[in-house]
Amino acid sequence: MTETDRLDAILARDAPAVARALSPLGRRAAFPRGIPWQSDQARGARINATIGQLTDGRGNPMPLDALSTGVADLDPQMTWLYAPVEGPRALRQTWIDRQRRVAGGPATRVSLPVVTHGLTHSLSVLASLFCDDDTTVLLPDPVWENYHLLFGLNAAPRFASWSFFRDGRLDVGSFSDEVAKVRGKLIVILNFPGNPSGYMPTSAEVDELVAALQRAHGPVVVVCDDAYQGWVYADDVHPRSLFWDLAERLDPEKFTVWKVDGATKELLFFSSRVGFLTHANTSGDAEDALLSKTKTIIRGTVGSPSGPAMALIQRGLSNGEVERQFSLRRQELGRRWSALAIGLERLSGSILTPFPFNGAFFALLAVADGHDPERIRLRLLHDHSVGVVAFPKAIRLAYCSLHADDIPLLVDRLVQVAE
Amino acid sequence: MTETDRLDAILARDAPAVARALSPLGRRAAFPRGIPWQSDQARGARINATIGQLTDGRGNPMPLDALSTGVADLDPQMTWLYAPVEGPRALRQTWIDRQRRVAGGPATRVSLPVVTHGLTHSLSVLASLFCDDDTTVLLPDPVWENYHLLFGLNAAPRFASWSFFRDGRLDVGSFSDEVAKVRGKLIVILNFPGNPSGYMPTSAEVDELVAALQRAHGPVVVVCDDAYQGWVYADDVHPRSLFWDLAERLDPEKFTVWKVDGATKELLFFSSRVGFLTHANTSGDAEDALLSKTKTIIRGTVGSPSGPAMALIQRGLSNGEVERQFSLRRQELGRRWSALAIGLERLSGSILTPFPFNGAFFALLAVADGHDPERIRLRLLHDHSVGVVAFPKAIRLAYCSLHADDIPLLVDRLVQVAE
Repeated sequence: MTETDRLDAILARDAPAVARALSPLGRRAAFPRGIPWQSDQARGARINATIGQLTDGRGNPMPLDALSTGVADLDPQMTWLYAPVEGPRALRQTWIDRQRRVAGGPATRVSLPVVTHGLTHSLSVLASLFCDDDTTVLLPDPVWENYHLLFGLNAAPRFASWSFFRDGRLDVGSFSDEVAKVRGKLIVILNFPGNPSGYMPTSAEVDELVAALQRAHGPVVVVCDDAYQGWVYADDVHPRSLFWDLAERLDPEKFTVWKVDGATKELLFFSSRVGFLTHANTSGDAEDALLSKTKTIIRGTVGSPSGPAMALIQRGLSNGEVERQFSLRRQELGRRWSALAIGLERLSGSILTPFPFNGAFFALLAVADGHDPERIRLRLLHDHSVGVVAFPKAIRLAYCSLHADDIPLLVDRLVQVAE
Repeated sequence: MTETDRLDAILARDAPAVARALSPLGRRAAFPRGIPWQSDQARGARINATIGQLTDGRGNPMPLDALSTGVADLDPQMTWLYAPVEGPRALRQTWIDRQRRVAGGPATRVSLPVVTHGLTHSLSVLASLFCDDDTTVLLPDPVWENYHLLFGLNAAPRFASWSFFRDGRLDVGSFSDEVAKVRGKLIVILNFPGNPSGYMPTSAEVDELVAALQRAHGPVVVVCDDAYQGWVYADDVHPRSLFWDLAERLDPEKFTVWKVDGATKELLFFSSRVGFLTHANTSGDAEDALLSKTKTIIRGTVGSPSGPAMALIQRGLSNGEVERQFSLRRQELGRRWSALAIGLERLSGSILTPFPFNGAFFALLAVADGHDPERIRLRLLHDHSVGVVAFPKAIRLAYCSLHADDIPLLVDRLVQVAE
């Protein structure tokens, strides 16, 4: 029995939705018994000559002073030496502990997260595991453009889309219709609060989304892109990541539910390139089998994550002040949000209509039919020195990168082009 | 004309070997006019609301104190905010300046390097650009196992192999024979000094390798995996990366020559996950076209590299002491190398025969016919508490992770199992 066959048998038995949803690459992937595997075995040997990194022979790094000066209080092994392909165990545990805490301590069984090179990389790993030419990938419209690139790079799936907003509210009906239409394998990406929407649903809307998914034919890979988790400024929204609700309520025979998150926005560490990938409703052998496949894909593309960023995150999360510091930043961004929301009321009746926004870093403005968002973008840029991003039928404002004092000026200039 | 067509036309005109060698994915890839592209355009706008990262609205990061304490002397933008997909221009320039300096200042025209997530990632990008089912990938035997995974993950090329050593020296004849056999597209990986070989060729051997390549049918993608650049302990070896020789001497109509290197070993920054990817003999439009394709593949899998690691490298390389510090480390490793080389003479006449080794971090021991390297590995591990890595016909010793004092003990135990 090959290692691939062994993993397949475990998944067919213990994680049927996963087994049904794997791509040909996902099915084939099995971590080889090569250098990392042999090195694992040799851990603790009196003489360990397995790993190609310079140490003092006692497990300690020997960084060049020119690089290491000034970061002496970071964990030296994590900062300078190779991490396991799946990331350091301590960081994986610290991360999931925090995820459970901010979600209010759900009882749901989930995997230990794998550390990735950021949320984009987590999504890419999922694309490798599950996406093939027989897959439908369901995305919202408007959508973060990179989903198409990520899921279409090495496969040619069918892309379907649902209309995110309708009449100024979340269009769950459109989502439900599109889900029900798909006969074969479906990958659904849920990004709340989202980019470019800036929207976090209410608990009632979450119930509707769950009900819509339950109509799916299956197998379904549900991906919760939680990049902006925690960035909400209104009180009436769902209080936790949808991942936990979906993990609790979707049938594991048909659904495999994944959480994509990371330090990028959650810890304001944009450059970190440290993300995580967690899945629900597997344990024991099936979790190990999925870990083997995930590690294979990571080692076959990019290898283990970056040490200094992980060491900074590990240290930051063990600092008792980190959540208070995050709250202060959220309050700061909440003030910008509030100023912008009030300011944008001046657009009423113009060709730019704000969609509801209550979270993430963005406000999205619908562009009236007959007007070209790209032309509006260029006019804003060239005539008013205002940079925004054009979508096919909308304009996105990233107020996260604006000083609060500049918001009235932004609104003035938007009003000028929108009249 | 689509962007893909535009790039193809440029490459066909200015980089014919590249145009002939691209995979279907490589041909298709063209950087989309999405958020990063629109953000580039908005640089310098009075109000820039394009980028989804929290700043103070004046371009400065707002990291949480819990994370940022103690790294105040690193470049704050590079440490905390998004880098361009291709990496910060300053770091790319600093890196190629150093590469030229350590190569003795060659005049050859090469591209500005793209920053990647480590050498593995550089290789993965090349696999995406060039490797498809109609490709032959020529690898040495013994070989670093991960090349097979990297080039076989998303394609099914034919793998060919040449015998690295024969009668105690580099077997260029075998290399030459295998090169000449291939009729279609060929990807050749040259890893000197290498893993697992620990071998850097002489200048005479480099001449033979170049001559062997010149017999190729073409198109040929030549990949210089320079992971261990600079780690040599003998005087009679070729004094620079083969990249420069190949770039100067191979016909650009038939060959596209790439350099894969990084901070991992060259700066003893194993955890950095900062690598580079440089190519020879293109300029202007063709370099831009390849950059567009490379960025597309990076953005579609993993995104821009990790900031703190890049900031540490940028600071380290601008420190006048860095080369002296590197030399001290090389001398230290040279002492281990020398002690091991002398010690291994005791294996003479046993079932373990050292291949010549003069560089990188490894010594490779041929295992006599009729003996199983995996069994020898397990005996060393379980009976002697010695961890080594087994290859199909050899044992690899990573002396980089041994204390010099332990080398006699290692040799004693090897002698015990080899008799």
